[in-house]
Amino acid sequence: MIDLRSDTVTRPTPGMRRAMADAEVGDDVFGEDPTVRALEEETTAALGRQAALYVPSGHMSNQLAVFVSAGTGDEVWAHERSHVVANEQGALSVLSRVLPRTFGGESGAPDQELLEDWARGADDVHRARPRLVCLENTFTGRVVPIAEQRRVADFAHAHGMRLHLDGARLWNAAVALGITPERAAEGADTVSVCFSKGLGAPVGSALVGDADSIARARRARKMLGGGMRQAGIIAAGALYALRHNVGRLAADHARAERLAAGLAGLPGLDATARTNMVLVTTEPGAAERRVAEFRDAGVAAFAPGPDLVRMVVHLGIDDADVDEAVLRIGKAVRAAG
Amino acid sequence: MIDLRSDTVTRPTPGMRRAMADAEVGDDVFGEDPTVRALEEETTAALGRQAALYVPSGHMSNQLAVFVSAGTGDEVWAHERSHVVANEQGALSVLSRVLPRTFGGESGAPDQELLEDWARGADDVHRARPRLVCLENTFTGRVVPIAEQRRVADFAHAHGMRLHLDGARLWNAAVALGITPERAAEGADTVSVCFSKGLGAPVGSALVGDADSIARARRARKMLGGGMRQAGIIAAGALYALRHNVGRLAADHARAERLAAGLAGLPGLDATARTNMVLVTTEPGAAERRVAEFRDAGVAAFAPGPDLVRMVVHLGIDDADVDEAVLRIGKAVRAAG
Amino acid sequence: MIDLRSDTVTRPTPGMRRAMADAEVGDDVFGEDPTVRALEEETTAALGRQAALYVPSGHMSNQLAVFVSAGTGDEVWAHERSHVVANEQGALSVLSRVLPRTFGGESGAPDQELLEDWARGADDVHRARPRLVCLENTFTGRVVPIAEQRRVADFAHAHGMRLHLDGARLWNAAVALGITPERAAEGADTVSVCFSKGLGAPVGSALVGDADSIARARRARKMLGGGMRQAGIIAAGALYALRHNVGRLAADHARAERLAAGLAGLPGLDATARTNMVLVTTEPGAAERRVAEFRDAGVAAFAPGPDLVRMVVHLGIDDADVDEAVLRIGKAVRAAG
Amino acid sequence: MIDLRSDTVTRPTPGMRRAMADAEVGDDVFGEDPTVRALEEETTAALGRQAALYVPSGHMSNQLAVFVSAGTGDEVWAHERSHVVANEQGALSVLSRVLPRTFGGESGAPDQELLEDWARGADDVHRARPRLVCLENTFTGRVVPIAEQRRVADFAHAHGMRLHLDGARLWNAAVALGITPERAAEGADTVSVCFSKGLGAPVGSALVGDADSIARARRARKMLGGGMRQAGIIAAGALYALRHNVGRLAADHARAERLAAGLAGLPGLDATARTNMVLVTTEPGAAERRVAEFRDAGVAAFAPGPDLVRMVVHLGIDDADVDEAVLRIGKAVRAAG
Repeated sequence: MIDLRSDTVTRPTPGMRRAMADAEVGDDVFGEDPTVRALEEETTAALGRQAALYVPSGHMSNQLAVFVSAGTGDEVWAHERSHVVANEQGALSVLSRVLPRTFGGESGAPDQELLEDWARGADDVHRARPRLVCLENTFTGRVVPIAEQRRVADFAHAHGMRLHLDGARLWNAAVALGITPERAAEGADTVSVCFSKGLGAPVGSALVGDADSIARARRARKMLGGGMRQAGIIAAGALYALRHNVGRLAADHARAERLAAGLAGLPGLDATARTNMVLVTTEPGAAERRVAEFRDAGVAAFAPGPDLVRMVVHLGIDDADVDEAVLRIGKAVRAAG
Repeated sequence: MIDLRSDTVTRPTPGMRRAMADAEVGDDVFGEDPTVRALEEETTAALGRQAALYVPSGHMSNQLAVFVSAGTGDEVWAHERSHVVANEQGALSVLSRVLPRTFGGESGAPDQELLEDWARGADDVHRARPRLVCLENTFTGRVVPIAEQRRVADFAHAHGMRLHLDGARLWNAAVALGITPERAAEGADTVSVCFSKGLGAPVGSALVGDADSIARARRARKMLGGGMRQAGIIAAGALYALRHNVGRLAADHARAERLAAGLAGLPGLDATARTNMVLVTTEPGAAERRVAEFRDAGVAAFAPGPDLVRMVVHLGIDDADVDEAVLRIGKAVRAAG
Repeated sequence: MIDLRSDTVTRPTPGMRRAMADAEVGDDVFGEDPTVRALEEETTAALGRQAALYVPSGHMSNQLAVFVSAGTGDEVWAHERSHVVANEQGALSVLSRVLPRTFGGESGAPDQELLEDWARGADDVHRARPRLVCLENTFTGRVVPIAEQRRVADFAHAHGMRLHLDGARLWNAAVALGITPERAAEGADTVSVCFSKGLGAPVGSALVGDADSIARARRARKMLGGGMRQAGIIAAGALYALRHNVGRLAADHARAERLAAGLAGLPGLDATARTNMVLVTTEPGAAERRVAEFRDAGVAAFAPGPDLVRMVVHLGIDDADVDEAVLRIGKAVRAAG
Repeated sequence: MIDLRSDTVTRPTPGMRRAMADAEVGDDVFGEDPTVRALEEETTAALGRQAALYVPSGHMSNQLAVFVSAGTGDEVWAHERSHVVANEQGALSVLSRVLPRTFGGESGAPDQELLEDWARGADDVHRARPRLVCLENTFTGRVVPIAEQRRVADFAHAHGMRLHLDGARLWNAAVALGITPERAAEGADTVSVCFSKGLGAPVGSALVGDADSIARARRARKMLGGGMRQAGIIAAGALYALRHNVGRLAADHARAERLAAGLAGLPGLDATARTNMVLVTTEPGAAERRVAEFRDAGVAAFAPGPDLVRMVVHLGIDDADVDEAVLRIGKAVRAAG
């Protein structure tokens, strides 16, 4: 099976396994794990912030960001299909008791008119208090332009709100734009980054931001049960990933292009590459069926919508896998004919 | 000042005041207030349900409805401008910890395609669990057709969800459609009705539904601090309103038409009557300015949007008030030139 | 039936009914009800604070106090039998998500050693953050000495905590001590007072405190659904009670003494008067049985514990009622023999 | 430094590191990590339950137990010094919105009279609903007799409540009693066990119970952000610990006895061994000072109370360490003289 469901399915490489086996560790609940510290410091530096916190998942990183910037009765603005709203079990309402207010569209950023409309009457006693805007970059593989991110950040700050950037795949955005991760995170007060997607580490994400926010997130991480003891074992995998696997994302992007090109011309499919993803539009309502056909042919994909199939290229996929996937999918489509 | 900001501004009539002064009362926390009981029984009958609960506000009634039908980590579908989502401080996220998912549009009801899309993958571990749909009738003065309400109810029930109807102005819908309130509430598992808007009582709403839901709402009302002792005093006003003031809403609707007709032709304004409301579309962004001009001329109105002015006719407004309001607004508009 | 279950069962007197019938009202959600304003101003003055907020119940008043002084992950110290912890459905954990930490004892105030023990390690990442101490005065009818209240307040303030005083029956404490309500509320940052217990109003309590806390409580009251429209109707009853019924509490206290004295010597009962309450200790586990016997004899009482019967004297009870209650209870006890 | 602060400070042994380096992994969010599955299956079997869930911390395991057995407005009974109430930041009020009701005493189990008192009037509208009892075994190193645990379980079940057992150190209880872990968990509906304390794994705990509870906990784990991708890396350490390190706890217990015996006779200290802990009572208020003296002498300990010092023996401590710790502490005490 060529597994293109997500870039979360990677397995650690031998070098990464060695780094984990040899990791120096301590009790991180007491702040004594040197590998976790090193990971947090290097992530802080990579993002040009004051502090970072290692957490077990991107979900926890996003939820801690909401928790430290908003709370009971506050309003959080985010895309209706953003991970923090649509793919985290409504945890922001459960853990932080905030009211999400959602925008749509394909760009991933709310337009200026909508921002201004939503900022009107923000102190009305009938309304939740706007406190936080969330952006996601990349958003379904699409790079949100830094100028757009900056515009939203400026608006948020001018209105007493903060900006959280869900940068689970920020590394991909930076590589695609040819800029540093720090520059790609411009304007954000807090940034969530994942080590376990394109970077290929087995476990973990980090929340990055100013010292005070991260100190509060550290406390809240414990409240959620995310404090781990000798976490240096898995942090070593994340640190290895951060040191060795950012640059190689360019190869993933090239392979996504190669995959999309290979699928061009197949009847009933319309494939587009975006960073490390290939988004395939199907006939109306056919996505689940297509995913089943591909699976039977030996390619695992995912249907995020009724007409949309997603395939994600990652560390475990090389050029030959891409070519083989194209062959198999072609055969499947022709067989389904 | 002719106060058309809302139908919540009415003052009790002499007959209603007498009813309150003479009310028989008891300790309602012990279930011993005969007037509250009578009000709950007559409301139950009017809506054709099993039980009703008297509460201090429509906000509490809606929030109790959400609380008894959904909870931590559940998803609630409602219009993005519905009262329960947009005008209650995000209380549904605070009190019930549910995730609102919102639809737009002018009709007040979600279309079938959207319902089907949202019901896909409802048990995915990444998603909140869909549990409740909320409709509002009337919605910004507009009557939602009963067939539409029925369609949404049927969909909800077929998918293991419940339907709550925010019927703060259900009486207006019933009168406009020439049907009973029971018929106007068709399909809803719980219904919130207000005594303090068009009906003119000083305080209170009721949540109506099946016996089990209302028993749980009764308990939750106490948790919120909505249990009142000798509530019969104000319940007497509500009961008087229920007995005497439903039929007269037709007069409000006629006066809204009269007001809209009177405003026709004024430059820069486009007025439409909907039940007891007149919705006036202004030049882009001019609503707040228009409200200020009208206020200076002696007419109080409200701007729910940047280009939208709302005027509401009620118990305290007669034909002469309407005609005078038309005169004053006309003068104001011409003066503003 | 002579109803001594609670001082919540009073019915409004003719003068109070007249005051309610004639009340000037407005829409209090817009801050336009003159009677509510007057009540809030006179209550503010009576307690010597900056602001007051009228609410539908003492439960809501207490819960708003917790909500404005503490929140998610904070620790609240209170007596294990205090109303705010033991008699409000755990609402402080639901609405404010605080962790109660409870002390026992008969005095109603925690001793100094316990306070110091609990303040140790308050910033430990394993602990909730101590933020609020709650006292209740009177506590089960017992007056907490002002010096004790002051001691706890000083400790709280020295440790960055606030003091909330549940003064549902603060009027009784003040009358018993012969001091002003303001003096009886000494040290408290927020005070909850009830108009519907000893004072005899049908509905309502007030939260009193500094302007900022009360402004936040006003917003939170709406979130809970406690915002009422023409609340002046019932506020008029509360205002009448505040103006006319504080002084007469001395008569209730005298009648409680008279009742306790009348019960002295009855076998198996040990009665003590505390302000307006008579606490009767029964044989082990016999309280519920005694309450049933008294009820059959025409006296309604309440069993707050397995060996404890409580009787409360109030506005609706005169000397003859007390004497009759003594007679009936005596007969019941002898019959139960 | 001889580190006796806790059994959480252990570092993985070479064998355990090899197991982690070689672990077969998959995406556990998709349920595809074979090592995690093996760990969950072996833990399920060891406890004689239906299912188990691997989580990043004992804190998360306890909190998930509360979350699946109780919720908004429910009452949870636990020891006032239990980990779930006193050492988890009040998370049970934050995450599950339950009201803790706490008992004291040294045995770790509530006596029967108190249970019966608390069960009275459980459906009163003023009270939270009792739903869950929590016990901890071992409790501060002390083994709670299985008969006591059984008694509390029977009471809970007879009253519609569940029993959660915080068995972070259940392995120690089983070894001390010479029974299986399954037998040591008798009566509990859910059990939390830790791999990272006495068993010496770097990260993780498990919640064990019936299939339905664990399925709900699995969903809730994701809500909290505790879903990890290739968690098999650390699960391999936990699995190694479960397979190899339970039996050796007897050696820890013997060393705790050896340590306590070695401290006997030191002035101002009263040492008792309990399973793998030594509890040292100091002069009143002297615990923090003693901990500082010991640290300066090269022994790290912990002060859980003003007069109490705790030392915990673990995987990283051998007989020579114990003897050296005795020497150093002796020197420190005599020097402080």
